Amino acid sequence: MKDYVAPLRDMQFVLREIAPLDEVSNLPGCGDVNLEVAEAILKEAGKFAGGVLSPLNRVGDREGSKLKDGEVKTPAGWRDAYRQFVDGGWNALSCDPHYGGQGVPRLVSALVEEMWNAANVSFALCPMLTRGAIEALELKGSEELKKAFLPKLTSGEWTGTMVLTEPQAGSDLSAVRTRAVKQPDGTYRLEGQKIFITYGEHDVAENIVHLVLARTPDAPEGVKGISLFLVPKFVPNADGSVGARNDVRCVSLEHKLGIHASPTAVLAFGDKDGAVGWLVGEENRGLEYMFITMNAARYSVGLEGVGLGERAYQAALDYAKERLQGTELGTKSKEKAPILRHPDVRRMLLQMRSRTEAMRAVAAVTAAATDVARAHPDAARRARSQAFVELMIPIVKAWSTDAAIDIASLGIQVHGGAGFIEETGAAQFLRDARITSIYEGTNGIQALDLVGRKVARDQGETIRAVLAEMRAVEAELEKEKDEALSAIAARLRDGVVALEQAVQYVVATYTTDLRKVLVGAVPFLELFGTVAGGWQMARAALAARRRLAAGGDGDPAFYKGKLQSARFYADHVLVRAGGLARTVVSGADSALAIADDEF
Amino acid sequence: MKDYVAPLRDMQFVLREIAPLDEVSNLPGCGDVNLEVAEAILKEAGKFAGGVLSPLNRVGDREGSKLKDGEVKTPAGWRDAYRQFVDGGWNALSCDPHYGGQGVPRLVSALVEEMWNAANVSFALCPMLTRGAIEALELKGSEELKKAFLPKLTSGEWTGTMVLTEPQAGSDLSAVRTRAVKQPDGTYRLEGQKIFITYGEHDVAENIVHLVLARTPDAPEGVKGISLFLVPKFVPNADGSVGARNDVRCVSLEHKLGIHASPTAVLAFGDKDGAVGWLVGEENRGLEYMFITMNAARYSVGLEGVGLGERAYQAALDYAKERLQGTELGTKSKEKAPILRHPDVRRMLLQMRSRTEAMRAVAAVTAAATDVARAHPDAARRARSQAFVELMIPIVKAWSTDAAIDIASLGIQVHGGAGFIEETGAAQFLRDARITSIYEGTNGIQALDLVGRKVARDQGETIRAVLAEMRAVEAELEKEKDEALSAIAARLRDGVVALEQAVQYVVATYTTDLRKVLVGAVPFLELFGTVAGGWQMARAALAARRRLAAGGDGDPAFYKGKLQSARFYADHVLVRAGGLARTVVSGADSALAIADDEF
Repeated sequence: MKDYVAPLRDMQFVLREIAPLDEVSNLPGCGDVNLEVAEAILKEAGKFAGGVLSPLNRVGDREGSKLKDGEVKTPAGWRDAYRQFVDGGWNALSCDPHYGGQGVPRLVSALVEEMWNAANVSFALCPMLTRGAIEALELKGSEELKKAFLPKLTSGEWTGTMVLTEPQAGSDLSAVRTRAVKQPDGTYRLEGQKIFITYGEHDVAENIVHLVLARTPDAPEGVKGISLFLVPKFVPNADGSVGARNDVRCVSLEHKLGIHASPTAVLAFGDKDGAVGWLVGEENRGLEYMFITMNAARYSVGLEGVGLGERAYQAALDYAKERLQGTELGTKSKEKAPILRHPDVRRMLLQMRSRTEAMRAVAAVTAAATDVARAHPDAARRARSQAFVELMIPIVKAWSTDAAIDIASLGIQVHGGAGFIEETGAAQFLRDARITSIYEGTNGIQALDLVGRKVARDQGETIRAVLAEMRAVEAELEKEKDEALSAIAARLRDGVVALEQAVQYVVATYTTDLRKVLVGAVPFLELFGTVAGGWQMARAALAARRRLAAGGDGDPAFYKGKLQSARFYADHVLVRAGGLARTVVSGADSALAIADDEF
Repeated sequence: MKDYVAPLRDMQFVLREIAPLDEVSNLPGCGDVNLEVAEAILKEAGKFAGGVLSPLNRVGDREGSKLKDGEVKTPAGWRDAYRQFVDGGWNALSCDPHYGGQGVPRLVSALVEEMWNAANVSFALCPMLTRGAIEALELKGSEELKKAFLPKLTSGEWTGTMVLTEPQAGSDLSAVRTRAVKQPDGTYRLEGQKIFITYGEHDVAENIVHLVLARTPDAPEGVKGISLFLVPKFVPNADGSVGARNDVRCVSLEHKLGIHASPTAVLAFGDKDGAVGWLVGEENRGLEYMFITMNAARYSVGLEGVGLGERAYQAALDYAKERLQGTELGTKSKEKAPILRHPDVRRMLLQMRSRTEAMRAVAAVTAAATDVARAHPDAARRARSQAFVELMIPIVKAWSTDAAIDIASLGIQVHGGAGFIEETGAAQFLRDARITSIYEGTNGIQALDLVGRKVARDQGETIRAVLAEMRAVEAELEKEKDEALSAIAARLRDGVVALEQAVQYVVATYTTDLRKVLVGAVPFLELFGTVAGGWQMARAALAARRRLAAGGDGDPAFYKGKLQSARFYADHVLVRAGGLARTVVSGADSALAIADDEF
């Protein structure tokens, strides 16, 4: 299998046409990163992803990370690649310049992050978790904690983790039992066992900064009694150097379906005299903080979906160009043809490609809104963008990851029998992708969040504003009097109607018959994602048509391909919207009527 | 994970209501197997599947089959289980009594086969391939070959293989290069390398009978120059005992995503002085014979889909009943609830269950027609049934296996984080299922077969007869004036309309614009499978409603559950039909318009 090649052309298109960087780079604090700078960053990132991370992806899968005598050994090449990653400044790309970061807009760093994920998602998880820790500290850490930890986390010299799950507390974090007892010196001592801790132990950096959910002895029951603590693997000395080993250790690593190189640790806190920790923010508000930072992590998992979709597509396309099998049906040729010439293989490749492009576009639009929500001078504009971002987070997370699983599975199918052989590499993408719909909140949890907090709570106001934008795009498509654009317009219209019906149902029914809405929550999320993807692909088609009308901008093949990709999405993906809406609106009765003992 | 429990209740329902055994057991040669006998067979098979095969499924996955010094060692317990399988007479269940078989109708043996697949698909592949060899020999073997090989293959003392694929000849078998040269004594000597040979080498039986596609030196090019040969691992002595080792050896085993215990061999024929083989049937007609027997194998792979769907469902349901997480949303309870109480988990479980039941019903109806096509005294009835079977084979194969992949993936999702951990066992079902859409003809090949040979060739006559049966069921549903049945009727009506549109398009366009039809071939197959499943679930709902009206037949929970399962299928699965039809009818342009260099 060839190494990953960053899709620079499509990313450039995104920054020019879909989520214009212009609108972001004029914002306070984003001024330095204009299109030229962004493209230079993407090019360098592409080199690192393709040249350093991608070659380690298979070996990482084969070797995995191993636990021996309490120490975790990452696969061959991992430590060196991480050092290069840190030395190249990649860890600090989107971080606050105050602590050594480069303050690159999220719009640009998201595209870079997609590359890490595409090249080697097991590797990319490490800096992804570090960013989560940084966010939590930036949000609520004391000045002292910030000073002690943020510079090292920003550079990547130290890495971070999110320590939430316990055996009885998965989706339901209110059940967390890990205890934290305050000490006379103001620190806490933690005791408890945590599971599923990504990069909870490893050998790529000299220290690990755990952000841990735990309960103080007098905390109230449930979600309102959970606090957030910072617990470093090594307690730093006053001079910032690594000090004494803390009382936290890795008990075991999970044997997983995929992401073998990413060590998923069981961590024991306080087996001896308690793990030393510092409170982040106020007591009993840990879950609240965690949910704020989790939004960023959920977005990042969505980018894993985009990256894995792209990578699986590239591998399948390469194979389809090279593999000769059969003659071209429907022609007179007797020559063996590359399977790319077979209509069904083209269909599979376009499924993979068009959905990946749609996911990238939706993620980029969301990233641009994140930048606006953070930095725009107009408060009303910030609030609107923030509402849009919050609406879209479950879509970027869940819709992109569900799609990535499908796409990776299609990638195997394109390879035929070879796809089932591990050496080919196509199967790894499915195994790796399969976790993305589970962690950082299962996609079912994302759907609950979507129908409840994001749609019903504001009576559909935010999503209806999006629907209005979709209708405006549809009107633009129709104005063009172009066959492909008209075909896309018709599908988009059906999609918008279907989504609107479903929104109306969710808003009307959420308070009167919650359980009915919840049966349709995942179909609703899929519906919204599907239509949102169609909206962005329709915008892409309009842009492509305009560029082609103006001579093709030096690259007509790209714009023609984009146009067909958008049309394919409309006819093969967006077309599902009507059925999904019917499921949302009238699919609940059976699931609620069946008794437990009738299963 | 609990061991597999055969779904005897649903299988009984199938034999009574969906594909009535009465109509089969009256046929010549099927008389002994009435409902009572069939249920006794199923009960015993269920014990063997749950008690012997299921406990070996995880160990088989973990250990895999290993090649050492040319010998393949199957996992611990495999040899003993196979011996028990043979001693119990299970291998001979559906075979011709003339050679020691028990002549059980396909309708019954198919349900038994589903159990083997559910319990341990890696194990089940061995007898599945043996049956393929038996079929080929029964069809075209000389009396001498039959006498020498059929008794041992029937009992299972010897096993069989299908030796088709070569590195350059996968879906396109016309590219086979293995050579067979006739010897003065009438035997042939074979030379060549074959790949992807399931159970091509193993230690569970004393001999292996390979059925090999190869070319004689003067054979014409392409598909019409391929002959079928029988090449045993050990050449039998005149007295039937195992004789000299033949010149065929296992060069390597593939390292696969799933079915680890099933040895997938690279076989070298004739490295020394040529492997001794016997011609089966006439020279140059091997592919023709192989395609006849392949129909049975394709049907069997469909049963792998059904079995894996059932197994994944059982595992997910068990977990959902036991795993406590969160409280029941939409109620006032503060108790931690089993996740089965969460609406989205119910949705996932009903997706798994209703699709598996639909697949089982469609497979059973096809099996019953197979029996009728073989044994009915009326030639016209036989021909009609044969046409129906041929129409349905690609559905049973491809629709069931695509669904099984989805279902197994949903099973992981129900398990949450635990689903991604290999020890849980849920991930194995996805890994194992992933091959089923590839081997015995990829699902893309099935779709080609469906739109071409099965729909366009007879101008849609056979499928339109099925559509008429569907409409009759819809009319019956409407007559009942029952809310659930009316809801199902409405979905079925939409499904039938959608399928009819698609059939019309395929028939009209196949000769005029083949490549357009081919882009939509897989969506067409999915559409037909989806509607066929809806048709059978609608019949199931009618039967369940009647039983409930008559007092519930001692088991009202079963019939109520069935009714909800059918309704769920209609609202969550069948509802996709309209979108699929639109894709079939108008989704081809983009895939054909995009140039190769625009990918």
